[in-house]
Formats: sequence, C-alpha cells, structure tokens
Amino acid sequence: MHIINIGNELLFGKTINTNAAFIAERMTEAGIEVKKLTVIADDPDTIFQTITEAFKETDWVITTGGLGPTKDDMTKNVIAQYFDVGFEVHQPTLETVIKMFADRGLEASEINRKQAEIPVGAIVLPNKNGTAPGLWMEKEGKTLIALQGVPFEMQAILMESVVPLLKQKYVGAHAVVHKNVLTCGTGESALAQLIEKWEDTLPRNITLAYLPSPGQVLLRLTARADSEEEAMQTLEAQLPSLIDLIHPYLISTEGETLVEEVSKLLKKNRKKLAVAESCTGGYISHLITLLPGSSQFFEGAIVSYSNEVKRDILNVRETNLKKHGAVSEFTVNDMAINTMSLFETDYAIAVSGIAGPGGGTTEKPIGLVWVAVATPTRVVAQKFLFGKNGGREVIIKRAAMAALNMLRIELQE
Amino acid sequence: MHIINIGNELLFGKTINTNAAFIAERMTEAGIEVKKLTVIADDPDTIFQTITEAFKETDWVITTGGLGPTKDDMTKNVIAQYFDVGFEVHQPTLETVIKMFADRGLEASEINRKQAEIPVGAIVLPNKNGTAPGLWMEKEGKTLIALQGVPFEMQAILMESVVPLLKQKYVGAHAVVHKNVLTCGTGESALAQLIEKWEDTLPRNITLAYLPSPGQVLLRLTARADSEEEAMQTLEAQLPSLIDLIHPYLISTEGETLVEEVSKLLKKNRKKLAVAESCTGGYISHLITLLPGSSQFFEGAIVSYSNEVKRDILNVRETNLKKHGAVSEFTVNDMAINTMSLFETDYAIAVSGIAGPGGGTTEKPIGLVWVAVATPTRVVAQKFLFGKNGGREVIIKRAAMAALNMLRIELQE
Repeated sequence: MHIINIGNELLFGKTINTNAAFIAERMTEAGIEVKKLTVIADDPDTIFQTITEAFKETDWVITTGGLGPTKDDMTKNVIAQYFDVGFEVHQPTLETVIKMFADRGLEASEINRKQAEIPVGAIVLPNKNGTAPGLWMEKEGKTLIALQGVPFEMQAILMESVVPLLKQKYVGAHAVVHKNVLTCGTGESALAQLIEKWEDTLPRNITLAYLPSPGQVLLRLTARADSEEEAMQTLEAQLPSLIDLIHPYLISTEGETLVEEVSKLLKKNRKKLAVAESCTGGYISHLITLLPGSSQFFEGAIVSYSNEVKRDILNVRETNLKKHGAVSEFTVNDMAINTMSLFETDYAIAVSGIAGPGGGTTEKPIGLVWVAVATPTRVVAQKFLFGKNGGREVIIKRAAMAALNMLRIELQE
Repeated sequence: MHIINIGNELLFGKTINTNAAFIAERMTEAGIEVKKLTVIADDPDTIFQTITEAFKETDWVITTGGLGPTKDDMTKNVIAQYFDVGFEVHQPTLETVIKMFADRGLEASEINRKQAEIPVGAIVLPNKNGTAPGLWMEKEGKTLIALQGVPFEMQAILMESVVPLLKQKYVGAHAVVHKNVLTCGTGESALAQLIEKWEDTLPRNITLAYLPSPGQVLLRLTARADSEEEAMQTLEAQLPSLIDLIHPYLISTEGETLVEEVSKLLKKNRKKLAVAESCTGGYISHLITLLPGSSQFFEGAIVSYSNEVKRDILNVRETNLKKHGAVSEFTVNDMAINTMSLFETDYAIAVSGIAGPGGGTTEKPIGLVWVAVATPTRVVAQKFLFGKNGGREVIIKRAAMAALNMLRIELQE
C-alpha cells in the first residue's frame, strides 16, 4: 500500500504530517504493509502523475486532502479523470448536506451541493463530521481510497468505513506485531556490538530498529506472520536470548518508560522519594511529576543551583564544597543523605555536574556528572562522563536518565 | 527539491515524521521550493530506486536516516553505489570519533571507526552530536545531501552546514524573511479577532501564521521579495501597527522566548530569583536552567509536592493550609515570601494548582492554578483557570508560562 498526502502546507513544513502516521499505524495493525508515504502539492498534474506511479508499484493507494469545497481542493476531479468516469449526484449525501445546513438555519449553497457529486462507480464513505464524503474507487484490481485532509474527519472515516471494508477486500494481509525493548546506560553502537550475533540469527520475518534518545536506546522488534498469534510467538521466542545479552541495561519489555518503571517500583514498595538537583535543574522532578498519581510517592525536590543553597538548605559540609567542589562524590553524597532526612523519605537522588557550555576544566570537563542515591540501607554514588556533544540539554537529559536508572537498580535489589 | 526520509519506523506509523516538516520549513525559509516528501523503508533497492526516480524530477535531494553504525543503516552504501564511487577514510572524522569515545573513557570500536569511512568525493558535514557525519554529494548538476535520522543531530547539521552551503550553491532562490512575534496571556482566536482588520490590510507578499503552544501564541510573519533587504523593509513597515494592537500580550519581536526575556531582565538588574513549585513540579526550574548562564541569577527552587513539605520546609502557615487549602492565594503568598527569604533572593515565584487528572472538585476544579510573585516591594497573586482540556502536561506548561509572565511584568515596572 502507498499513502499519498496532498497539501501545500505540508510541503512548506508549517504543518507536521500526522495523517501519514495515523493511517500507517492503522494499516500496520490491520496487517497491511505500507511501502511508501508521499506528500505532494495541490496540483492536478502532480496528483495524477503520483497516483499513476504509485499504481505501478502497488494495488492499494490511500490519499488524503483535496476533497473539500474550495478552489484548492482538486483530488475528486483528478480521481474521476484517472478512473475515466463522469460525476453523478449521490442522493443520501445531498440530503445530509441540506440537513446539516438546515440544522444551523442556513440553506446549502451551490458549492455545498456540489459535494454530493461523486465519481460514477465510487463507494461512498460517509463523513459524519463534514460535508464531503470519502471515496473508494476500484478498477482492474487497483483500489484508490480518497480521504479528507482534516485529521478528525479522516480518522473517523478510516476507522468506521475503511478498516472494516479492507478486512473484507484486502487479500493477503499478514499480521504484524511489535515489541519495544527499552534500554538505558549504554550507547547505540555498544548495544549493536553486544547483540550483533543474535541479530544475525534472527528469522527473516523479524526486523530490528534502534531508536536512540539521550541516555536511552529503544529496540523495536517487528514480526510478520500469517496470524497475530504466530507473529507474537516468533517474537517471544527471540526475547529470552536478547534479554540474556542486554539484561544489565534492560528497563522494560512492556512499553514502559524508565520513570514509569521507577514509579511502579516505589508504589509497589510503598516508599517515598525526594530529589536534589543541581545540573539537572528540576528536570528529574518534572519527569516524575508529569506522571499522574506521582504524589503517592514523590514528596518534592530541592533545586540547589548555587553553592550557598547546597550549604545552607541542603547542609552540604563546607569542607566538602571547598576541598572537593560542588561536582564531587562527597558533595552528592551529602546532598542525597540530607535530602532524604529533610523530606523524610525512604529514598533520595542527588545530581551535580557540569552541563556547560561554560564551567569546564581539564580536571572537571563539561559532561562530568556525579549521581548519588540514598536508600534505607546505604548511599551509592557514581561518576558519569557524558562528553560535551549534544550540548547542555542532552547532558541534562542523560544525567536524569542515569540517576533514575541508578534508583531503579537500588529499588530492584 | 525532494526530501526522502528513510526508516521502517515511519512506515509503521509509530513515529511521526517531524524531520520532513523541519527540513521543509528551513528550505521554504531559504526560498527553496520543496516539491515532494517521500518516506521509504530501510531497504537498499528501494532507497536506490527512490533516489533515481527523484533525480528525474529535481536536481536537489535531501535524505534522512540510515547513516548510523547499526545494521539497519544502509544509506551510505547506497549513495556510494548510486554515485558509483568507493569509500575512503575521512581523517578528521576518525579523529573526532576516537576523541569522542576517549572523552568518555572508552575506546572506539571497529563499528565506530567505520563511521569515518565516506564515499569518495563527498563533502563532509560535521556532526557535533554524534559519530556519523552528514554527506553532500554532487555529480553532473545533481546534488544529494544525506543527513541523520535522529532529529537533534539532523537539525544541527542542517542549520550549521547545509543551509549556508545551499546559500552558496543553490541558484534561483528568492529572498524570504520572517519575523517572530511572541505573545503570552491570550488565546489564538482572541488574538485573531484583535488583529483581524490589520491582517486584512497586509500586502500580498506578506503571510501570517498563528503558531500556538500552551500559554503562548507565536505570530510568524513571512515576506517574500527580490532581495532580503526589500523583504525585511516590507515586514518592518507592518510591525508598529501590529505592536500597537497587541502590546499587552507582547513578549518579544526579536525571537526571544519568555524565559529568555525574564533572564535578560534579571541579569540587567543584577537580581536573584528562587522558585517554589507545587503543580508545575520542577518545570519552571527546568526551563530556567536550560538557559546557559542561568546560575548568574537563579539560586534554586523547592518542589513542594506534599503539604508536609510546604509546611515544614517552606513554612507555609498550618492555618492557611487547613483553612484555605494548598491551592489558594494564602498558600502561594506564604510560599513566595518564604522562598525569597530561604534562598535570600530579590524575587520569588510560587505556583500551586490542580493539574489533574484526579483531585478536582466543584469549588477547585482541574486547571485551577494560583501564582504569587514576591518582589523587593510587594507580593502579587493571581488566579488562573486553565480548564482540563489538553490534560496534565498542558496545564503544567500553561501555569509555568503564566508565572514567568507575571514575573516579567513585575521586572519591567
């Protein structure tokens, strides 16, 4: 299947193409392989040519856009031209259009009535959210499904009419299933090396994608098979050997994020958490408090951006600050222990580092971060060197992930 | 120009293709017309064929994806095949790769070193955020620019290398200039109504886009003309009458964000700031500390997520918490004043609200937020009703913008 999105605003880059992703995801769920997504201008020749090219490579095309009443909507005419048919009035659509305007005390104009004209032979896909219906055209084994560009109109027609019809008419849909394996604490290339041999032995119906973000790599496994059950079985069979290889870095195989995993463990153990943030500047607290219900385990945080705040509010020993500096094992240990007692919690995280772009020295370069985690039984600290690549924001995000991951490991013990 | 995004995850619809919009928008700004966006699979034959087809219609192609170190990255090989060249080691890239790993105390593996192998004749586009560089290939009037799939890597290379090189090499672009006018404190449709008549009188070569984000609306004015100077003059001529209409909501016409504006004012006046966050949970501190140099004015913050923390660390009066509740004018006033004295600063912001999805009542619904700002001379508090639409994250972001805007107004007085 190919998906063709028609609209100048997509080519200007002012509008992000969420329609392509929405349709592609529904097709994947229905076991239909999407081979190409194309965005083109509201231009009749380009639309005609792109549809022609697509049907050389596939029997199924979905278009979005150009079905509305205004001058820049020209898809319907091009479709009639491509399938070499005229127009006819679709009576139920005309009645809907007239009623829709009557409900608002208005009379449908000539332009509005034209929406009820459809290419001869089209299956009409009702549009409960607008005037122009979607269209389904078939000829010589080729099917073209023309949908709206407005997301909520398109989505409703896709779910209510297109997906059910595809289930009847699309032959050879195979089931596609995914498994998201989230890792933290190692880079994309190190992970690739670790699982290189395992990857080489994967059956041909399984593909693997590496999706990195600062501090994390998501491994997405995709399997295709005749049935969903078979695809899932094929995937599940590969998981244990993968987990065996990557277990020190494994966060979740259930689609959960690192902070969700930490939240789950804290709630399960009925433990409370507080945070002391220097270089991460509130980002860890923000990640935690984005989760609904985080007040069940999260007491609060101190963002101790200056040394005075570290000393006066967090009671970091002056000798540690002077002798070892704000970015040191001694300081983060003090921060973690004192935060735990100040907030009366069971656990505390403390982070201090150099996020740049200023402030780096040879001894303490940009990207150096110390993290401490205080638990009911001990305090562990770890040093990280994130380098200066990616800049301030990436260092902040990596430090937050590293800190949450250290807490996760402590909570699992 | 055509843009080709390579990546199975985009065809599955699991990932929304923001790269296409980002690149298309930059090209539009540079006066280059994007005629087609295509998404295809990580498959060498498909990549080869799509590049071949694109060059039949255009002289300029940008690709994203498939430049990384893992097995699913195959763009580099296809490019070498398409341009019919071999590979050579790019010494500066090799040194960067080795140094990047050395900075983190690691040795570059064989896989990492391979990143420095580039197709013979390629112009290397340095990637400061990762190991693999971007590539610029030219042959017989056709140019292919191969960029990363990871957004922040791609964006930096595009802005720092590709756009400047295009300005030298791309012939026939017309001048396009933009002016970003940031507003805060009123909604998109209210703003549209306010400037409706002004908008109607805009010359035909100026277009206006409304780009809303939680708590802010960015007005982007775009002018096209034969020269950059002429386009900018046309734009500048329209500004005074726009500013006149929207001045109560105007943050900046210089492309600065609200938090940058606040930071500028604090630095100029040599004043210090501290923050007390309840429902915003660290987000305001995160926004502030994302700015390089924020340690010049930002002392720190307390995320007082529980009532105990509000009472015991922030000294909010028990009577206020009991009688008026955590989300009340009395509580945020206490929070602001006590944060200012605890952190010994000149200004303090305090925020308390109901971000949902739980915790709302008829009297105190989801979306209710109280903000107080303490200054050297007074404390001002304001109540906001953000509604529950958009959910938790949008309420948090709106509350943060409202608080920073209140502080901005105080700083300007």
